[in-house]
Amino acid sequence: MSSFADDAVRLDLLRKRAFNLRWAEQPRDVIPLTAADPDFPIAPAIREAIVRYVQDGVLSYGPAQGLPLFRESVANYLRTRRGAPVDAAGVIAVNSAAAGLAMVARQWLAPGDEAIVMDPVDFLFAHTVRSAGGVPVRWPIARTGELDLDRLEALITPRTRMLGLCTPHNPLGRCFTRAELTAIGRLAERHGLQILSDEIWSEIVYAPASFTSMLSLDEAIASRTVVVHGFSKAFGLAGLRIGFIAMRDHEACARMLAASEHPSTVDGAATVSQIGAAAAYDHALPWLESFIEHLRARRDQAIDALNAMPGVHAHSPDATYVAFAKVSDPPCAIEDLVDRLRREHGVAVVPGSPRWFGEGAAGHVRVCFATSQGILQQGLDRMARGLSAIRRGDRFMSIDRGTHTP
Amino acid sequence: MSSFADDAVRLDLLRKRAFNLRWAEQPRDVIPLTAADPDFPIAPAIREAIVRYVQDGVLSYGPAQGLPLFRESVANYLRTRRGAPVDAAGVIAVNSAAAGLAMVARQWLAPGDEAIVMDPVDFLFAHTVRSAGGVPVRWPIARTGELDLDRLEALITPRTRMLGLCTPHNPLGRCFTRAELTAIGRLAERHGLQILSDEIWSEIVYAPASFTSMLSLDEAIASRTVVVHGFSKAFGLAGLRIGFIAMRDHEACARMLAASEHPSTVDGAATVSQIGAAAAYDHALPWLESFIEHLRARRDQAIDALNAMPGVHAHSPDATYVAFAKVSDPPCAIEDLVDRLRREHGVAVVPGSPRWFGEGAAGHVRVCFATSQGILQQGLDRMARGLSAIRRGDRFMSIDRGTHTP
Repeated sequence: MSSFADDAVRLDLLRKRAFNLRWAEQPRDVIPLTAADPDFPIAPAIREAIVRYVQDGVLSYGPAQGLPLFRESVANYLRTRRGAPVDAAGVIAVNSAAAGLAMVARQWLAPGDEAIVMDPVDFLFAHTVRSAGGVPVRWPIARTGELDLDRLEALITPRTRMLGLCTPHNPLGRCFTRAELTAIGRLAERHGLQILSDEIWSEIVYAPASFTSMLSLDEAIASRTVVVHGFSKAFGLAGLRIGFIAMRDHEACARMLAASEHPSTVDGAATVSQIGAAAAYDHALPWLESFIEHLRARRDQAIDALNAMPGVHAHSPDATYVAFAKVSDPPCAIEDLVDRLRREHGVAVVPGSPRWFGEGAAGHVRVCFATSQGILQQGLDRMARGLSAIRRGDRFMSIDRGTHTP
Repeated sequence: MSSFADDAVRLDLLRKRAFNLRWAEQPRDVIPLTAADPDFPIAPAIREAIVRYVQDGVLSYGPAQGLPLFRESVANYLRTRRGAPVDAAGVIAVNSAAAGLAMVARQWLAPGDEAIVMDPVDFLFAHTVRSAGGVPVRWPIARTGELDLDRLEALITPRTRMLGLCTPHNPLGRCFTRAELTAIGRLAERHGLQILSDEIWSEIVYAPASFTSMLSLDEAIASRTVVVHGFSKAFGLAGLRIGFIAMRDHEACARMLAASEHPSTVDGAATVSQIGAAAAYDHALPWLESFIEHLRARRDQAIDALNAMPGVHAHSPDATYVAFAKVSDPPCAIEDLVDRLRREHGVAVVPGSPRWFGEGAAGHVRVCFATSQGILQQGLDRMARGLSAIRRGDRFMSIDRGTHTP
């Protein structure tokens, strides 16, 4: 049995354990294509590493910066797979990539400082900037085409401190090229901006697209960059709450650690989570290859199905396992549409609400396809039928949800 | 073999895994009686629960408030073992008790607000108050004798918002009585103060002393109380980073959750850690009984040895596994004394530095005794010899550390 076959999905467990708008938070007859979190069990190598560690029975305090073996594993991965010359001394284990974004924003921004973030983009960019007392300034980004660097430059003011990048991009699925990232980096260099690069999607990239880390660019750019990463997307470890921040400069890293709540023990990542994440990089890359192969087929399946729906258009993502689809001439507000799809047609997707993703997300829905062929097909079928019914003005088409609910 | 026999201590693993001033952060020939963290492997029931959970392979996002089964387990424990009528809806899983202290302080205190904390007390009280922009105001507490409630009342100003209690008390080992806590609660009620009660030591209490939770007092007191608790002390789960905050009022709990960084996923506790902690309360209480029995003997051993050292006096703690010893007429500053004990005599203890514990800690050392009979005896022997040598003015007595290093 393949790790990604239809019967590899443990719906019994997902219904008890998958929260954040997913199985455990939906009625039993709803298929969630919502939070970016895979429906498949984790790699056996990760399971085994955690089990071995816990069986030993010693779960004492970890160090504030993270376990040496975790930081070594991350640094080795960044050096060998990303061409980013990072050492263990430049890595801090954090309690999720989201926690990493918050840590960096808190330290770089004083109240009233501005941070440029993409539009659309994952809500955590604007959220963590605001939580730090900063002001998010939106830079519009499209799925394709040239980056508008003039517009970016025009957004910079004397209060601008930080440029937040999401590469590969959620929700657009765009994997920025080395040339694009270099041009952005030069601009940051010229204006003395720090760069926060959220690279949580960097493992989920479909050839011929290829990923470039901001930390692999030249010293002038990399030295002003902190990368934030996590293990929820590629390895399905959201429940472990484990990520890292990485930078080239050891002293900057030591300062960031000292100024954080890690030394006080208020903040930090669980050691057992670090063990699982280290095993992901050290032993689960072959598993990841198969996962990406599976996802490539699901991507094509989702994009074909979405584009076959009247008035729906979705570019095929070069990276991530979310499809971002424009609903033209929608029959109602997108939030209401999504709500009706869920309540009346048994499929949950994420609305492209401007308050979450920025103005550039208006009129879109985000569809996660990190599931089995069968579940994805049922979800897409329900969406197609639901959308047609809603467009026709039918109000209660909730009975026919296809042959069976998984 | 008993779970707490000399040979139950896995020094090979502690030297790799026990950080925070402990084995992994000390030279090989130093015995750390430092951070309050046991040297023993965790309860088998906790290991087994985590292993089962991870073997299943589904580690998706947990809910912002914490897994229902964790919150049920905590609420059941508080109801049946503490007489505190708390429901799962009044519990939030947090990324350590320290994170819980910080969450409550951030939400209760505006910049400039005052919070009364005990003196001495664990540094996290003043630290989390200051991090929240508040001002800690110290209320002196002694190991024995009547509480000075007049002094407490005199500290209250129009800016006072919060009263931070540590019961049982670290580092004094005092377990406040129901009458004492009620008197404090009445005073808080009279002045409209919120009560933050850190009860992380509540499981480690030696009869005839008995623990009273602030949440078990009458409604007028309990309704203004949030309890913070964690699983590092009683169950040795510091590496899992798991604790909770609990309160009676569901709506207050929902507001605290909504105002926190849990819904954004920036903050939160790992699901696997919640599984381990739930197993602690559900299945590891018999193990805990044996641990307390072991600790009672170690307490007597430590107190007898400390009081036999010239110029050292230590009250026997009614709770916790730390001894807080006064060093009279010290040969040098207490930080220097501790440093020499560690470097020259192979035993590490925690200095009672006023900047960490408050003025009431001056001239004291804190000695953790949550280890085996054998290791504790060696550590105490080294301390006795070291103190004598330092008092005699010998500078380099580092050769003779007893028959062997563990």
